[in-house]
Amino acid sequence: MVEEVSASLDVGLLSPVRAGCPVEEAVCDRAWLQAMLEAEAGLARAQARLGTVPATAARAITEAVRGSHFSDADLVAVARAARETANPVVALVKSLTSVVAAIEPTAADYVHRGSTSQDIFDTGAMIVADRSLRTVRADLGRTATALAALVERHRDTPMAGRTLALHAVPTTFGLKAGGWLDLVLDAVERLDGLLTEGLPVSLGGAAGTLAGYLEYARPLDDGAYVEQLARAFAEEVELGHRPTLPWHALRTPVADIAAVTAFVTGALGKLAVDVLVLARTEIAEVAEPTAAGRGASSAMPHKRNPVLATMIRSAALQVPVLAAGLTQGLATEDERSAGMWHAEWQMLRECLRLCGGAAHTAVELAEGLQARPERMLANLELTGNQLVSERLTAVLAPRLGKAVARELLTRASAASADTGRPLGDLLAETTGLEDHLDLSELPMLLDPARYTGAAGALADRVLDRYAKGTPWT
Amino acid sequence: MVEEVSASLDVGLLSPVRAGCPVEEAVCDRAWLQAMLEAEAGLARAQARLGTVPATAARAITEAVRGSHFSDADLVAVARAARETANPVVALVKSLTSVVAAIEPTAADYVHRGSTSQDIFDTGAMIVADRSLRTVRADLGRTATALAALVERHRDTPMAGRTLALHAVPTTFGLKAGGWLDLVLDAVERLDGLLTEGLPVSLGGAAGTLAGYLEYARPLDDGAYVEQLARAFAEEVELGHRPTLPWHALRTPVADIAAVTAFVTGALGKLAVDVLVLARTEIAEVAEPTAAGRGASSAMPHKRNPVLATMIRSAALQVPVLAAGLTQGLATEDERSAGMWHAEWQMLRECLRLCGGAAHTAVELAEGLQARPERMLANLELTGNQLVSERLTAVLAPRLGKAVARELLTRASAASADTGRPLGDLLAETTGLEDHLDLSELPMLLDPARYTGAAGALADRVLDRYAKGTPWT
Amino acid sequence: MVEEVSASLDVGLLSPVRAGCPVEEAVCDRAWLQAMLEAEAGLARAQARLGTVPATAARAITEAVRGSHFSDADLVAVARAARETANPVVALVKSLTSVVAAIEPTAADYVHRGSTSQDIFDTGAMIVADRSLRTVRADLGRTATALAALVERHRDTPMAGRTLALHAVPTTFGLKAGGWLDLVLDAVERLDGLLTEGLPVSLGGAAGTLAGYLEYARPLDDGAYVEQLARAFAEEVELGHRPTLPWHALRTPVADIAAVTAFVTGALGKLAVDVLVLARTEIAEVAEPTAAGRGASSAMPHKRNPVLATMIRSAALQVPVLAAGLTQGLATEDERSAGMWHAEWQMLRECLRLCGGAAHTAVELAEGLQARPERMLANLELTGNQLVSERLTAVLAPRLGKAVARELLTRASAASADTGRPLGDLLAETTGLEDHLDLSELPMLLDPARYTGAAGALADRVLDRYAKGTPWT
Amino acid sequence: MVEEVSASLDVGLLSPVRAGCPVEEAVCDRAWLQAMLEAEAGLARAQARLGTVPATAARAITEAVRGSHFSDADLVAVARAARETANPVVALVKSLTSVVAAIEPTAADYVHRGSTSQDIFDTGAMIVADRSLRTVRADLGRTATALAALVERHRDTPMAGRTLALHAVPTTFGLKAGGWLDLVLDAVERLDGLLTEGLPVSLGGAAGTLAGYLEYARPLDDGAYVEQLARAFAEEVELGHRPTLPWHALRTPVADIAAVTAFVTGALGKLAVDVLVLARTEIAEVAEPTAAGRGASSAMPHKRNPVLATMIRSAALQVPVLAAGLTQGLATEDERSAGMWHAEWQMLRECLRLCGGAAHTAVELAEGLQARPERMLANLELTGNQLVSERLTAVLAPRLGKAVARELLTRASAASADTGRPLGDLLAETTGLEDHLDLSELPMLLDPARYTGAAGALADRVLDRYAKGTPWT
Repeated sequence: MVEEVSASLDVGLLSPVRAGCPVEEAVCDRAWLQAMLEAEAGLARAQARLGTVPATAARAITEAVRGSHFSDADLVAVARAARETANPVVALVKSLTSVVAAIEPTAADYVHRGSTSQDIFDTGAMIVADRSLRTVRADLGRTATALAALVERHRDTPMAGRTLALHAVPTTFGLKAGGWLDLVLDAVERLDGLLTEGLPVSLGGAAGTLAGYLEYARPLDDGAYVEQLARAFAEEVELGHRPTLPWHALRTPVADIAAVTAFVTGALGKLAVDVLVLARTEIAEVAEPTAAGRGASSAMPHKRNPVLATMIRSAALQVPVLAAGLTQGLATEDERSAGMWHAEWQMLRECLRLCGGAAHTAVELAEGLQARPERMLANLELTGNQLVSERLTAVLAPRLGKAVARELLTRASAASADTGRPLGDLLAETTGLEDHLDLSELPMLLDPARYTGAAGALADRVLDRYAKGTPWT
Repeated sequence: MVEEVSASLDVGLLSPVRAGCPVEEAVCDRAWLQAMLEAEAGLARAQARLGTVPATAARAITEAVRGSHFSDADLVAVARAARETANPVVALVKSLTSVVAAIEPTAADYVHRGSTSQDIFDTGAMIVADRSLRTVRADLGRTATALAALVERHRDTPMAGRTLALHAVPTTFGLKAGGWLDLVLDAVERLDGLLTEGLPVSLGGAAGTLAGYLEYARPLDDGAYVEQLARAFAEEVELGHRPTLPWHALRTPVADIAAVTAFVTGALGKLAVDVLVLARTEIAEVAEPTAAGRGASSAMPHKRNPVLATMIRSAALQVPVLAAGLTQGLATEDERSAGMWHAEWQMLRECLRLCGGAAHTAVELAEGLQARPERMLANLELTGNQLVSERLTAVLAPRLGKAVARELLTRASAASADTGRPLGDLLAETTGLEDHLDLSELPMLLDPARYTGAAGALADRVLDRYAKGTPWT
Repeated sequence: MVEEVSASLDVGLLSPVRAGCPVEEAVCDRAWLQAMLEAEAGLARAQARLGTVPATAARAITEAVRGSHFSDADLVAVARAARETANPVVALVKSLTSVVAAIEPTAADYVHRGSTSQDIFDTGAMIVADRSLRTVRADLGRTATALAALVERHRDTPMAGRTLALHAVPTTFGLKAGGWLDLVLDAVERLDGLLTEGLPVSLGGAAGTLAGYLEYARPLDDGAYVEQLARAFAEEVELGHRPTLPWHALRTPVADIAAVTAFVTGALGKLAVDVLVLARTEIAEVAEPTAAGRGASSAMPHKRNPVLATMIRSAALQVPVLAAGLTQGLATEDERSAGMWHAEWQMLRECLRLCGGAAHTAVELAEGLQARPERMLANLELTGNQLVSERLTAVLAPRLGKAVARELLTRASAASADTGRPLGDLLAETTGLEDHLDLSELPMLLDPARYTGAAGALADRVLDRYAKGTPWT
Repeated sequence: MVEEVSASLDVGLLSPVRAGCPVEEAVCDRAWLQAMLEAEAGLARAQARLGTVPATAARAITEAVRGSHFSDADLVAVARAARETANPVVALVKSLTSVVAAIEPTAADYVHRGSTSQDIFDTGAMIVADRSLRTVRADLGRTATALAALVERHRDTPMAGRTLALHAVPTTFGLKAGGWLDLVLDAVERLDGLLTEGLPVSLGGAAGTLAGYLEYARPLDDGAYVEQLARAFAEEVELGHRPTLPWHALRTPVADIAAVTAFVTGALGKLAVDVLVLARTEIAEVAEPTAAGRGASSAMPHKRNPVLATMIRSAALQVPVLAAGLTQGLATEDERSAGMWHAEWQMLRECLRLCGGAAHTAVELAEGLQARPERMLANLELTGNQLVSERLTAVLAPRLGKAVARELLTRASAASADTGRPLGDLLAETTGLEDHLDLSELPMLLDPARYTGAAGALADRVLDRYAKGTPWT
């Protein structure tokens, strides 16, 4: 068994983006098992509050769960037994029942009373998801704070704006970082929406009618009891509850988590791919934080690889496809699907884990990112100011007509590109241009740093949004 | 050219779920072209409101757009020209400019003033999406109304609840249909969230700084002007606007539409796959609405295929994978991606179109679905009441102990399955059971129709949610 | 650390389809680590064969790898260190070097000589994939054998053919099972194609030019040496080699594995979804093998859930989306991608693991599947022989004209469906039909068992294909 | 109707990668309709060859199909009618029958004789796929030829190898382009595998038993007839045939097309993303072919956007997710799925169309790509030769020990990066190094152009593979 256990380690060797991050422990098999046990105990306590389970029994079950020392071998046994029933709850209940019986024999019969595997599994899953997403939330908060500092510091640092891989017109690094922040705030909004409403407990009984729970609660009023039981259960396990119907086959909560984790990871992916572009040897406008050993190559002593961005991007590439698999689960048949439900579990964990790893890694990236204004300036000047050709067109259009102005600039830009001579020199030599333009204005008009449009004002807006945001925990 | 046009027809031959549905016209190439033209006109009017474009020019541009008779050949020409620039806007602007010039020569220079392809394309896309999603909204409303009627009518109609493909415990058709309704209401909530906030216009200029717009607006205050321009533009084209930053490379609106269309289609997919199960020859508990020719087979005269559910399911299988492609677009590089932006367009249209087709088809399915209570009852009785074995366990557990009770029922159920004899008969013959149970209660306890738990109360809840919902348009 | 290790267990709790299956051990973190170590040793031996590393050093490295007792804590340490470099190889090399130094100090400098992380990681990945896919191959072989027996036994067992959820025309269970077998043989073909060619070692050096290897091999001829080194390396680790170029950024091998595992799992998914349909309570034409505890429900004593099919389907729903993620990796930038390569690892493992679990589960399903010919017959008779209406149309069309014949059968079928009376009775009462048809032939013409077309001959074909197949190992 | 038609145009406005490319016409609705008609005619001729349909009837049907002038309105009508039956074949058969009747009244009854919608639809789909993939094959051939010329011309042109976004060690542009070529040749191999075996006709009848065909062929021998019919049908429509079973519910051909189109598009995506990196303003090592208007920006006169690579990348991002949807279709239920089959159609067309567009665009990109050796050299020299630090380590390791050598180079590289001084100068100043290294060798050792490893030999290998390849058509 020891060997078997060792053969079952997943320590993140294949997923450095989350290796050792808090989310790993929150979503591991052991955490999932523990969460299902908490669901069982919370359910018993909820039933006890409503008088349908003796208080002593609920206490014994809770005690069994809190003191549970499921060995690694027990965990393996439950997982293996899950092959017999296509889910781990049957074996878990059996195991819990025997622990409870040892504590208080009369309590054993109250374990899992009136319940069904899916109520326990899905509630456990939501406990796990809730904990995971709260670590994500905290890390997004720290990331936002770090990015806000970058925006502030570089509000007016000019750099080349790039579209379709080429220099377009100037922008600022403050606006660039502001975009990253804005997306993180979008992510926070979506995540807060989910967490504020509260991920729901699952409570439906064998086929969503709660008949088993009610049978044990006779002769209570059905409608009122199921409402009370759901509320009490939710309180006991600190989750929300779905106010209308049990969700065994209405997979809204899972689809929502899929959408949110995909959004969060994708949003951080934008930061990552931008850093990867800007860190390129020829561009070198940003660098990742240095740390001992960080970014080292096994072969090349000179490299400082942008590993944080690389890892975040690796997560951003995976979560959307996993989320697609989860979303397809909405179209699930019957009162409980044979296979679609089961397909969710591992994909759900992976979405949470990659999202959690990406968020944790983003904190480190955002807090340590080094901007190099001097490189930004040098790159701005690379093309002899061609990237302000739009401005010159705008200045000349009212004077020459748009078509003529555009033609003139297109020709001058092409000549600048061919000859390597600055755009300004070529324009200054253009016959007749002095009739339409005070040539002494050319240096100002051609200064990239003076053609950043509303970049500063836009950066202020996003800082304002950040400042008004939910207080970060 | 006529032949070329004919070769470019997409009339839904490969996608019957949307063939001829309103959404088709809303998302076709022509509609997209028209929406981009409306974006150009709306932008000019917005600039005119702020005094940076002459009112006469804005009027001429608007007139050109409203009266635009782009022939099919023009449309083809713009699309083909898009290969030169990787987007259709450059050719569109050229074409529009010449139309405007014919109306009012002085106005031509004000077309697309200060603008960039992505502002026009993305604004056009949001106009198209907004219109499409409103048809979806209306169809979801009608679907919900039809489902609510089903829930009401069948609140207490018992049927077998099914899990992992097998009879589990009884439920009601009212609760089943209530689940479909609840999911549709979830879909409505998510869609309304999107539409209420308003899909945003795109306004960023060449690289997201709005520098071009500002250059033409000198010497106005930058921050205030961009705010005013965005508001005015949004009003003119009846969209919302993203309050912080231009979203050229912050693809939140697209990711949101992806998530919502995947959710809506998936939610309708649940209805579809349930109908497909219940319509099976051996089950036959529901039938699709009949109409002349509907459901006919090319080979088999006796068939009435469940074609509406089939078509909806076909959409539910496609949208989540397309949505994954769109969500990946969040991790987009630079101020405008080379390729990720371009990958969105067709997938976005397809998400909208399939979602719109599924919603339209769902109206027909929900309004015409025929329930067959007598078949539901007959199926409930198929297994000699084994599907109330849970109830008997619950009744006997407090008397015999849970393990003994469960063992007894497991054995009796197996015997019932093997021999085909009713569970009740086998129980009645069980030695000593009469010491624990008044055997005269057995018929009541074994009546599936009396073991539907809180199904009725739950159905009421979802009807209540429906009744409180946003008024349907 | 012990706690940390325990927190890192993945024993399949969320993925019963593979819990405890052989593939789990083949793809776990430990196996991956060991495979990378084998790659290092194999590389050293290959270099030794070519004289560029001393034989003693290669022996010491091999000894270190074979006797390596990486503790769980070491494994964790390597995984955590991978966050510093975005891959685990740097830490692994460091660790291996110190073990080698302890065995033979002069050998330490020859560890990883001229190499790069990706050569070691990718070669290790292919070793893991090769081993995993061989377990899949063996399980497909056993599955095929079991299915062939089913085909043979039920070559002429009639059952309802079903299309769009409804009875269509009769078929046989032999042909149904023959379809499952045919798909499995397709899967075997695709898998054998991959394994016969041989998954390739990775050998490219820092940027795919093998410059590092060559520098240490001076003054050998470049072209010949890299060819020899690749061959020797491949032989030492028992893999193939990519004959043209290093594949650091040419991800054909990964895309191929993605396609094959998606195909295999999808093919088994067909078996699974058919079993799930046929096992439905109302249909009951097949049942899963019974085993102690198998298929038990936590709430319902009477259930024998089709858990094997459920688990296989859960895998078939996941692998295609994961494979999409892997296939996207083809469009990878540079000589080594920042993020796309890293995104592959976990998805690749998951594809292998789910595929392996599905194949292992399929053996059990195919070997134990119980067919119930009496239920197949009963269902065939459910609709009063409507499902041979096609045949009657074919018989009457040449006599009455196709349109008239079809119309007649459509009307009779509808009447049969409405009244519940057999199609034969209604036809016998049709005025004038006796002029065109010897009514005494009707019973034969309406016998579903006599309208199975070429089902028997087709079943023979697939058995023939099976018999000619590659000998199963 | 004219307006409706115009509203149904899809001229590629949203998908410039394929706008106007040959594949568009090959996969449009009209082509699909025509292919289904050809399937009907081919089937009739095949039956006539076997004597089960009169030759005159087969001729009339063929004549009707060849001369078919389905108006756009007819096409719309068929597509709309498909909503009644969930597929377009029923309406198509009706329409064809009336055309045939007008030509030869006695032939009408032989249209679609014994057949089923899926036989016609799927055969039509394979005709379309075959034609589309042959255009892809031709374009891959031209792309390969153009890339081979690049490889040859730049066999020894040094450039920086890049990993994780940074300069790693030198490589050559010949090897870079060789990688693109190698992937294209992999794509060709996979495509040829598919086309050589031949995409199969579909021939199964109502539920895969061919009973309908046989009923009309009585009293012929079943097994032999179905074999002969399949062969004759395949010959008539110039496709292959699946040798064992009908594939209505065995979706191997579709999964194979999905895998191949995803591979082809992904392989071309590698070319695209590399071009996008190398075309960046700061890197500028390649440029796209210039053409009038090509790459123009709507706002910025100076830009020459890499539009071909952009468009190819847009396809590479879409096809893998679409292919995932298609591959999921393997797990399809029954003899014909309700929904999964229907979900395939549009995704299949889109895979073919995007793949075809990408291949056509790749020809233009590969034939016109401009390499700039002088920029490659300039970039190589950017970092003061740090990118040969691996070589120095390799040279010094045997003399100083690996650890010491590596430490020395790491420190020197860091100093070079900090100070901007060349690595060689810093090494020359390192105390004591002259004891281990003839410093006069330093310039040679530090010359990037002399550290390209086996790049030349590898380029030769891929040229050799190209030269041995299947002759390009």
